[in-house]
Amino acid sequence: MKDDEAQVEAANERFYRAFESLDISTMEAVWAHGDHVRCIHPGWGLLSGWDAVRQSWEAIFQSTREMRFSVSDVRPSVDGYIGWVTCTENILSDVGGRVGVTAVLATNVFERRGDGWLMIHHHASHIFAAAARDDS
Amino acid sequence: MKDDEAQVEAANERFYRAFESLDISTMEAVWAHGDHVRCIHPGWGLLSGWDAVRQSWEAIFQSTREMRFSVSDVRPSVDGYIGWVTCTENILSDVGGRVGVTAVLATNVFERRGDGWLMIHHHASHIFAAAARDDS
Repeated sequence: MKDDEAQVEAANERFYRAFESLDISTMEAVWAHGDHVRCIHPGWGLLSGWDAVRQSWEAIFQSTREMRFSVSDVRPSVDGYIGWVTCTENILSDVGGRVGVTAVLATNVFERRGDGWLMIHHHASHIFAAAARDDS
Repeated sequence: MKDDEAQVEAANERFYRAFESLDISTMEAVWAHGDHVRCIHPGWGLLSGWDAVRQSWEAIFQSTREMRFSVSDVRPSVDGYIGWVTCTENILSDVGGRVGVTAVLATNVFERRGDGWLMIHHHASHIFAAAARDDS
């Protein structure tokens, strides 16, 4: 089980390196390509199926000059053929010339495929620091 | 598999009825109670472990007068002992006397336990309609 969790954590890390690459073929290699894959970018609506998910990455990569992730609080879980991770994405980005630093929480789901793990779901959402302090 | 998906969809529905009940013992019955459960309320930081998750529901229920969910675009998936659902929560709420209508996207993860399904992860985040229109 520990090995499985380490593998899922590695797949999660590979996703963020693919995101940083801003290269669509690198991102393609991280994902399963079926109708069952889904993706929720921060503030976006649900994207369902690989074609829609792939198009979203193309659009993001085209509008992004640079993006660097420092991923923290990575918590992998595995049960059978499904692995899921929650983590905090600490992001330094340059989108359209605007440099920003932001923190995003992500839930990433992977499926076991042969001896590797492919992403089937990415749900990312902004943390509002004040709300977290007030309510928790 | 279709039966499994229907069961997970029913567990998802049960979660929203528990949320509407604003009753902590009804919500307790929906969740697994281990250290592995996690929860991300819209804008909050990650809550990890049942104690923290339970406390968050108590706080939400104490500050909420009424909440009504109309859940749409419900997409259940099952693989072995894990089921996961994405859905849109269309929410009518009365928090501290302020009535609001909002749309939230959720990823809900369940684990099979005997002949039922218990929630182990809830990730909810606001949809920004303009961002979704511009980018997708």
